[in-house]
Amino acid sequence: MSAVADEAAQLKGADRRNFLRKGFAVATAAAAGAVTPALASNKAPNLPEWTKTLGRGVVARPYGRPSDFTDLQRRTVPWLTASPESSISFSPLQDLKGIITPSGLHFERYHGGIPEVNPDEYQLMIHGLVERPLIFTLDDLMRMPSVTEIRFIECPANGGMEWKGAQMEALQFTHGMVSCSEWTGVRLSTLLAEVGVKAEGKWILAEGSDAAGMSRSIPIDKALDDALICYAQNGEPLRPEQGFPVRLMNPGWEGNTSVKWLRRLEVGDQPWYHREETSKYTDLMPDGRSRKFSFVQETNSVVTNPCPENPIQQKGFIEIEGLAWSGRGTIKAVDLSFDGGVTWQKAEVKGLALPKALTRFGFKTQWNGEPWLIQSRAIDETGYVQPTLAQLRGERGTNTIYHKNSIHTWNVHASGEVTNVQIT
Amino acid sequence: MSAVADEAAQLKGADRRNFLRKGFAVATAAAAGAVTPALASNKAPNLPEWTKTLGRGVVARPYGRPSDFTDLQRRTVPWLTASPESSISFSPLQDLKGIITPSGLHFERYHGGIPEVNPDEYQLMIHGLVERPLIFTLDDLMRMPSVTEIRFIECPANGGMEWKGAQMEALQFTHGMVSCSEWTGVRLSTLLAEVGVKAEGKWILAEGSDAAGMSRSIPIDKALDDALICYAQNGEPLRPEQGFPVRLMNPGWEGNTSVKWLRRLEVGDQPWYHREETSKYTDLMPDGRSRKFSFVQETNSVVTNPCPENPIQQKGFIEIEGLAWSGRGTIKAVDLSFDGGVTWQKAEVKGLALPKALTRFGFKTQWNGEPWLIQSRAIDETGYVQPTLAQLRGERGTNTIYHKNSIHTWNVHASGEVTNVQIT
Repeated sequence: MSAVADEAAQLKGADRRNFLRKGFAVATAAAAGAVTPALASNKAPNLPEWTKTLGRGVVARPYGRPSDFTDLQRRTVPWLTASPESSISFSPLQDLKGIITPSGLHFERYHGGIPEVNPDEYQLMIHGLVERPLIFTLDDLMRMPSVTEIRFIECPANGGMEWKGAQMEALQFTHGMVSCSEWTGVRLSTLLAEVGVKAEGKWILAEGSDAAGMSRSIPIDKALDDALICYAQNGEPLRPEQGFPVRLMNPGWEGNTSVKWLRRLEVGDQPWYHREETSKYTDLMPDGRSRKFSFVQETNSVVTNPCPENPIQQKGFIEIEGLAWSGRGTIKAVDLSFDGGVTWQKAEVKGLALPKALTRFGFKTQWNGEPWLIQSRAIDETGYVQPTLAQLRGERGTNTIYHKNSIHTWNVHASGEVTNVQIT
Repeated sequence: MSAVADEAAQLKGADRRNFLRKGFAVATAAAAGAVTPALASNKAPNLPEWTKTLGRGVVARPYGRPSDFTDLQRRTVPWLTASPESSISFSPLQDLKGIITPSGLHFERYHGGIPEVNPDEYQLMIHGLVERPLIFTLDDLMRMPSVTEIRFIECPANGGMEWKGAQMEALQFTHGMVSCSEWTGVRLSTLLAEVGVKAEGKWILAEGSDAAGMSRSIPIDKALDDALICYAQNGEPLRPEQGFPVRLMNPGWEGNTSVKWLRRLEVGDQPWYHREETSKYTDLMPDGRSRKFSFVQETNSVVTNPCPENPIQQKGFIEIEGLAWSGRGTIKAVDLSFDGGVTWQKAEVKGLALPKALTRFGFKTQWNGEPWLIQSRAIDETGYVQPTLAQLRGERGTNTIYHKNSIHTWNVHASGEVTNVQIT
């Protein structure tokens, strides 16, 4: 490499970026594989077929779909559940960019499959310890003052297969129970002001209209805070998979509390202790007791490039990338380690850092074929630091399923392949 | 209405919102149509069919699609162009929420239809007045440091049918040549640093690989500023309609400069004066001369609710909503008029106000069946105020097609119907 390229290779992060901008010759492109054209002249190149043919015109697809050259998809882990109707599918985080999850790739979680709710017959009833019980149609809800926010939704079982050891050999399966969308709806607090919550009203039962009648008890404080009754996802009506036509969305909380195909909100003075919040969604601790109502999805992060699905293809420049998120607010910082947590360096938080939303981080460096034990560690605005697996096991044991937000390790091999490992 | 409801109805904007939050009984829900349940008791309601049936399970659709109960679609104005391959389709803004345009509904603009570019054979050549001409594959581009931004793309012909008078009876057709996505790619400046632009390089020809070889000359300053070489749209690969696998994206500029299916960037010392920037995309002025290289999409706005497709269905509470955007930066404020521009009130800028992106505004009020001449007027961070139609015609005449960003008027009739009118 040239002396200038050597110099560039030494730089990290912002320095490197400035170096590039100054227009100095760096080996980046050459390292990236870019080639010099054999004929850098005025001769017309050989035209590929696609340029010589009149293409598909407007409105051949009134609602578009991805290129036939791509095949991004949700996937399942077949042995996880007994049936597809009470099951989960995972977002292909390894293929995604930015922070918006394409609506067609948002992870799925069902307890009785998708109910085909007719929006013209849809009703949301709010009753119980209220002054005026009311029934809202979809039109009613859409007439109310609207709010739009970008928020993640995460299943608390995200990573749950890994409590006892590294098990899944793909990012899609270690972390794919999280997605992020732009949600639009009306604040639940606005609706509660309409019905008038009685002084003794302290909990709300949120119930869905799926075959399971999936329900969760929500504390009134969350309901009056940032809970949203949503009808739009990334600008259009909710997808059936995410609760069409209306769902509850509790920013930063366990995904199951964001009840889909919402039909009823009942205000009460105690939690209901329904099935899904007793037999499930509680955290079995080492002393045999269970944590209940562990609502908040704690700060979490993972490196998305490299990962098992994205091995490193060649030596030279690489931008390490990943996602961080926190149910407690915004991501303040992300650290990276290449030696399994012995030493740490500051990664760059890239783009929008919104509260309770996916956030991108990056780190520009060089890979020269050395093995890495790469980890990311997120810190949120409250100062909470993503814990190590040892810390988490120390607190919770290994008999729990949920809330495994510990620092995750990928082993990058000399071959460039990436495998899942656990380091306590 | 109750005394309390009367009081609430008098309030506007933030005061009303606070009023609602205090939980006082307001007539909003009743006005919204919400009804009191006949039986607000413990009796189980009649269950709809969709609750009594096990629904579709996971990964029946590895890549999801909208509910069969919905039918949002792009549409065309058939008399606008001679063929669908060189034509345009419009986003259904009247149906959309938030600021992200669903990828399947992003407006289309073709000059030779969609080329079916094979991503494995894709190449981007950068040559001309450079030190080191280079060819980049898609993998090369995706290895470079990535940037993600939410930006609108607008065709300068948006609203162009209306220079001589109100013509289109739908929001989709008056303003639907604008969409907004989360774009991911590599800064063009990063690539230009790789090839090394020579001192005399002042312009770049961006050329696409469609059948038309659509091309535009871009000033080097824009190329070195925020121009992006994009490969992802709302988190996944570009849609074929928006330039799969790679496009140029010039934030805030005429959509045609954001060349799709980009194949070549040639650095030169003068503009090329190609067909699409001489016979088209110039602005014929009253004196017979044309403005050329009018790159920036000026500040614009429109009320989306109500609009012809969204008539007002009932008296009482309504939240006026709309979109504002500026190629010059962020939206700072939006004013609303109900009397055709005689008096103005401050609307609320809602949610994210990002530079060169769609921005939502709202205004809570009551409609009592009175006719309205409703207008929105956006002001951007530079202090630029959206002009009236009279001001715009005074400067540009009526023989031009492009850059009609004037204040738009909807006539709300006593029936609640909404028609397009022009007020000079």
